[in-house]
Amino acid sequence: MSAIDDLVTELSRLPTIGRKSALRLTYHLLKQPAEQSKRLAEVLATLVERVHPCERCYNLTEGTVCGVCADPRRDPALICVVEEASDIAAIERTGEFRGTYHVLGGRLSPLDGVGPEQLTVEALVRRVAAGGVREVIVATNPKLEGDATALYVQEQLAPARVTVSRIARGVPVGGDLEYADGVTIAQAFAARRAMT
Amino acid sequence: MSAIDDLVTELSRLPTIGRKSALRLTYHLLKQPAEQSKRLAEVLATLVERVHPCERCYNLTEGTVCGVCADPRRDPALICVVEEASDIAAIERTGEFRGTYHVLGGRLSPLDGVGPEQLTVEALVRRVAAGGVREVIVATNPKLEGDATALYVQEQLAPARVTVSRIARGVPVGGDLEYADGVTIAQAFAARRAMT
Repeated sequence: MSAIDDLVTELSRLPTIGRKSALRLTYHLLKQPAEQSKRLAEVLATLVERVHPCERCYNLTEGTVCGVCADPRRDPALICVVEEASDIAAIERTGEFRGTYHVLGGRLSPLDGVGPEQLTVEALVRRVAAGGVREVIVATNPKLEGDATALYVQEQLAPARVTVSRIARGVPVGGDLEYADGVTIAQAFAARRAMT
Repeated sequence: MSAIDDLVTELSRLPTIGRKSALRLTYHLLKQPAEQSKRLAEVLATLVERVHPCERCYNLTEGTVCGVCADPRRDPALICVVEEASDIAAIERTGEFRGTYHVLGGRLSPLDGVGPEQLTVEALVRRVAAGGVREVIVATNPKLEGDATALYVQEQLAPARVTVSRIARGVPVGGDLEYADGVTIAQAFAARRAMT
């Protein structure tokens, strides 16, 4: 039954889904009405075709610039730097931040072969150098690699004479920004400190 | 960003996947190479199109009859009755059972609106009535509903004068057959008892 094995194999590649979960999901997809499973396949195919990085901040979008960058009520003088586009969703849920974003696309991690050239730091430096930016808030994850990345971003922005701040460690140390609750994230934004 | 929301919604409908997991998976699907995610979509679409129930035993197959029914080395005089097609995979992994199967498509559960007419018991009775069947081994899950279903199957097969047995409770009571280990399942088969 190769079609079943194929799907189990593909699903097993996803994070947090092992072979047994993949098998269980596959049987579920076969047991539910076919239209439902077809719709999932279509929605997934559409997603991959339509969604790409915002040309300004690298957030994910279906247009040329993302919803945040296109919103005239957002303050372009304030840039929040995050590791992944998924972190934006977590920050947006708090409704506290009215600036714009910059998605690095990861964190510095020599062991995983992620160096500065894999991240969008250069594009950030260019954005800031173009002027009109008052403050850059670095909201990388409060882990070793996130800290190293924040430091690197700060160094690269040093010549630009812009305030570079880091969100306070209200976010649980060792945790993922993605899983933090809204209140914690909001407090971390309020208690941010200038990086010296 | 409707394409993202669409996929998150569709993924959240799957068992054991909540909204946060769905979001995480979606971002992973966007971060990995597009070909990889496209392949998942294709494989899923193919699955739904090609896979359907075996016309003899209701196991899942891409042909008219499933691999087990089509295999001349399998004993058609011995039928193992399971709740779901996924249970067959668990039993096949033991390599101990050389008979054929019959998939009920669920278990009797009045609270969930599952009555005898939702299951394939009638088709099983017809299969047995057609002759050539020596024994029916009922391998429904060792839970209240699985027990009720086994009893119902036994009652329906009573006029057929065929041996109806139930796999021994070597399978952990209250558990799922799908998650049992091979040795336990094999022992449960060996220690099966005639239902009286």
